[in-house]
Order: sequence, then structure tokens, then C-alpha cells
Amino acid sequence: MSLNRALIFKKVPRGLPVPGEDLTIELIANTAIDTSPEHGLLIKSLFASFDPYMRGRMRPVGHKSYTPAFHLNTPIDSFVIGEVIHSDNPAYQKGQLIIGELPIQDYVAVDEASIKRVKPLDNPLELPDVRVFLGPLGMPGLTAYSSFYEIGKPKKGDTIFISAASGAVGQIVGQLAKQEGLRVIGSVGSDDKLNYIMNELGFDGGFNYKRESPRQALARLAPEGLNIYYDNVGGEHLQAALDALNDFGRIVACGMISDFSNPPYAVNNLHNVITKRLAMRGFIVSDPEFGPAYFVEHQKNMQKWIKEGSVRFLFHETVGIENAADGLVGIFQGKNKGKALLRF
Amino acid sequence: MSLNRALIFKKVPRGLPVPGEDLTIELIANTAIDTSPEHGLLIKSLFASFDPYMRGRMRPVGHKSYTPAFHLNTPIDSFVIGEVIHSDNPAYQKGQLIIGELPIQDYVAVDEASIKRVKPLDNPLELPDVRVFLGPLGMPGLTAYSSFYEIGKPKKGDTIFISAASGAVGQIVGQLAKQEGLRVIGSVGSDDKLNYIMNELGFDGGFNYKRESPRQALARLAPEGLNIYYDNVGGEHLQAALDALNDFGRIVACGMISDFSNPPYAVNNLHNVITKRLAMRGFIVSDPEFGPAYFVEHQKNMQKWIKEGSVRFLFHETVGIENAADGLVGIFQGKNKGKALLRF
Repeated sequence: MSLNRALIFKKVPRGLPVPGEDLTIELIANTAIDTSPEHGLLIKSLFASFDPYMRGRMRPVGHKSYTPAFHLNTPIDSFVIGEVIHSDNPAYQKGQLIIGELPIQDYVAVDEASIKRVKPLDNPLELPDVRVFLGPLGMPGLTAYSSFYEIGKPKKGDTIFISAASGAVGQIVGQLAKQEGLRVIGSVGSDDKLNYIMNELGFDGGFNYKRESPRQALARLAPEGLNIYYDNVGGEHLQAALDALNDFGRIVACGMISDFSNPPYAVNNLHNVITKRLAMRGFIVSDPEFGPAYFVEHQKNMQKWIKEGSVRFLFHETVGIENAADGLVGIFQGKNKGKALLRF
Repeated sequence: MSLNRALIFKKVPRGLPVPGEDLTIELIANTAIDTSPEHGLLIKSLFASFDPYMRGRMRPVGHKSYTPAFHLNTPIDSFVIGEVIHSDNPAYQKGQLIIGELPIQDYVAVDEASIKRVKPLDNPLELPDVRVFLGPLGMPGLTAYSSFYEIGKPKKGDTIFISAASGAVGQIVGQLAKQEGLRVIGSVGSDDKLNYIMNELGFDGGFNYKRESPRQALARLAPEGLNIYYDNVGGEHLQAALDALNDFGRIVACGMISDFSNPPYAVNNLHNVITKRLAMRGFIVSDPEFGPAYFVEHQKNMQKWIKEGSVRFLFHETVGIENAADGLVGIFQGKNKGKALLRF
């Protein structure tokens, strides 16, 4: 077999991780494996997911958070789609596709103890582009689907505002909202992304927040006020949305990239929560009322919509593990248009 | 009959209302009434409620908010307990006690068109101190009761933190929480109030925020973290609570006095909403899921608890309508210990 290279967590970053310093690509010690462990599998990686929450795992081991910290000097884990190239386990055959949380490296030996970390790719409609299982059918899709319904409580005729609207979660929320008969407004960080949400996804309104402040844009695009704010960024967007929401508005607190800035953006208008009786709620897709509760419904509907072409999805690929560190860091710089992933 | 004086909304205040300028006591024009209007009542006022939300009504008529604006040069409305001294309506007899939203003035003529603004005081257990119908059995009590259960979702063993804990709402929330088997921590603005919540109401912990910051106090008093924050003030308290809440914590957004300050306090740690999956929700007692949904249960339980002495309640009386403006303004200065009201 060829070289086995991995994306290594080398150093806890200050602010944005630096490729080559905090994240490195290394030949890992045991490159000679060419068979599966006893009762296990040997996997050739095809695609790995890059997601914003991974920044939170690049921290010292002692700091508590909702996801476990990555371990220094070991490969970074993510959702990976791979092909079984050797199996010593009766449940898997050579050539079969799997998906699971695995280290980002060319080849992965999955032993018996960790075989529950992978599962066969369940693709009954034979969707030809399996990358969708890291996007609309993966964690970002389930995140969008479960929280849009569980917290957003959408009603036909509502107006929803989505920040980071061309991102992995945002583009799904926007399309679900259109299906449900909502007016959909999105914010993005480039004119190219704005073109995508308006002309490819059919949003009703959108703006590039680098050209127009969220406050001004919402006054212009949603004079009727908002019913739902789907928050992927926090900060100035959240503050503008708090002012623009109507009575009984809902805020889906999905991500707050702005709060990683130093000093964090401070929100000065939370009094709107009382005067307008707003509900704001955070969640993580693994919480019981979210991912687990919506998993079956989400897979069934989303597979169908992708098959018939009524849900579209854009990927942003980094090609080659040698570029993995740059690809991962790129998502914190707004470089990707669409869901970021690595093609091995 | 004697003089008929009223508390008049004279001028829209900047910041804190100024007695004698923004709020005045005036002899009102028609002082000679000594009989009821046709099919109506003549009421002698006994007690009127002073509540924080009244500040929000002292605004220019054009500004929208969740409660109607007071009208300039007319008496200020509030919840009033009074005695029928003349009745031309078969549903009421002379000597009967009523409660309703009425202008704060010595005598009120209630005509047929506005008679639905009053109702007979429903006191089946013959509670001797009728002021409780403006406190634990009135709007503050129903506010506390409905939101504590509906948003707080208390579970035995939880830790709750209550700001403005000796106030009209806070002292009820604290006692409900003790009944439900919670650990109860309160913040107050004086040592005298601290003594009240600790020694009279049996809180498990408390602090005077003028002597110790909420952040330090919560670290000391609730090292196990919070499950519920009942917020009556916002600002620095809210920020400290966001850091101290445990996963899946609830924030009952009842009041944010800090946000009336200029510039408003800005909260810089809303990222906790996501990482700890917090739920924060505002409400107004008249919203269907709150007051109306809990009214019957609240009256039944609270009347019983007051009768048997298991719920205690402290009033802060201003005596004489000539002092009404000072009494009302006092609640924004932290001058009252317990529920503020006017005794005519």
C-alpha cells in the first residue's frame, strides 16, 4: 500500500490555527499495514468532513466543553467516508462503502473494539454522489433539519433570517424554509455567495454583510419583521436580529463564530427577549430531542428530495491530504462556498 | 365626599421619573360626585399596586410596546383594591370589595361601559389581609408562578438563582422553589433584604450585589453550577449566570432593569447558550400559556398556602396619595423591601 499520512493536532492554536504549526501533515509510524486487524477492517479514506465545531476541539485536554478535546500529536477525527479494502469481519465486504468518525488519514485500521465507530453507508436510492452523506444527509443536514423544526417552529408565511446562509447548515435551512412557505432572507460574506443563495437556492432576499450592516439590510429586506432568526454567527448579526424580530420570535442558536473573536462582541439589546417574548435556545445535534429524534424522518425526506432534485447542495473540496490543514483552517476564514470537505 | 386627588402622568420622564415634574398629585376636576353613574359604581380606593412595568408605560403615545402608554395629563392606571360606596348595578352591593385596573385616585366612578374592568374580590378562605390580592395572589404572584413552572421547568435537586430576590416576584419564586425541593440562591441590594431572604424566607444562599459581584458570589454559593436563572435585572447578573449555568439550564427572562441604564449593559458571553444548550425565554403574564393557563391553579394553591402560613410575603407601603409619586419612583431606586403599594 501507499504512504499513510495523517492530519495531526500539533499545538493548541491561539485564535486561528496555523497550518504547519498547529496542524501538520505527517507520515504516521505504522505505514506497513496491508491487512485488517483481527475481526476488523482496513479502510481507504475517500472524503472527510471539515466542520466549524472542530475548532472547539483544538484545546487543552483539561478544558471542559460539549465535545471531547483532540489529543496532541495524534490525528484529528472527523466524519469520513471510506471504502473497505480488507475485511476480517463478516458484517463487511471488500469494496463496501462505510461512514464513521475516524482519524483523517489515508488508511485507517479499525479493530474489533472500535468497529462500532463505523457503519455501512445506507444509500437505498443509490444517490450517485456519496458526498451528500457528509452534507445534507450528514451531521450538518441533521443539525439544520432537527433545529429548524424543533426550535424554529416554522409556520407558513413566517419570515426567517439565516446568517452564514451559504454554509453547510445555512443552505439546508434556507431550502427547508422555502419548502414550508416561509420568506427567506440570508446573509453571506461575498457577492459570489450572495449570487448562489439568490439565484441557485431561490432565497427571497440576501445581503453581503461586508457591504451592508445586518441592521440596515434587515430594515431594507424585512420591513415586516422576523419570526425566526437562524443564528450561525452571533455578534452583530444577533444584535440586529433581536431588534428586527417580531413578538414571539424564535432564535435558533446554532453557531456563534463572532464569539471566538477577542474581545467577544457584546450584545446590548437583550431587553427585546422580554418586551417581545422571544425564545432563544442552543442545542447540539447529538442531544436526544434533536439528531436522535429526527434522524429517521430526516434521512427519509432528504434522500427523496436529493433524488428528485428539489434540494440542492454545494460542496467546497480541498483535494489531497497534503492540503488538509489549509482546507480546515479555510472554513474559519470564510473561504469556502458550500460545505467544506477533503477529497483524499 | 372628601377631596378627589389623583396621581397624574404629567411629562414623559428622561430616565428616572421625577416626582412633582413627571408625576404629580392633583385635585381632579369633577370632585363633587357622590353617587354612582347609571348602572355603575362609585369606588373608594383602598390600595394600589406599584410595579416596575409601569415605567414602560410612561412613554410618548406613538412608541409601541407590550403595554399601552399612559396618556399625558390623566391619572395613571394600576391594579387597585377598593370598596363599593355606591352602586347602581345589581351585581354589586355597597360595602363590597372589588379589584381591577383603575386610575390611581381617591374615588373612582365606574360607568356601565367600563364595569368589566373591575370584579368582586374572590376571597373564599377569608384571608384577613386583602393586600395579598395585589401581591402573591395578584399579578406579581401569577407572574412568578406561571413562569417558574412554564419556563423554569423545576426538578427536585436543581439549583436556582433569583435576582431581585426580595422583590414582589422574587420572593414568590424563591418560596415556590423551596417547596419543590430546589437549592435557592438570591441576590438583593441591601443587607437588610439579605437578612429577609435568608432568615425569613429560608433561602439556601444569598448575597448583596453592592458588596460582592454576582460572578464571585455564584462561584462561592453555587460551585455545583445553576440549573435555572430567574432574571429580574439583566446586565451583569445575567452575564454571571450565563457562565454559571450547567448544561440544559433555563433562563426565565422576567425583567431587565439594567437595560434601562444608558448605555445599556452589553452581555459578552452568549456563546454559553450554544455550548451549554441553554434555553432563554421572555414572557408577559397576560400571554395565553402563562397567566391565563395558570390562573385557577395559582389561586387555589396560593390561597391555601397563605392561609396555612407556608408562603410569607412582605409589603412595602407608601401611605397617602400625596406620597404616591415618591412611592412609585422608589421601586426603581431599590428603596422598597417587598412588594410596593399605596395605602390610600
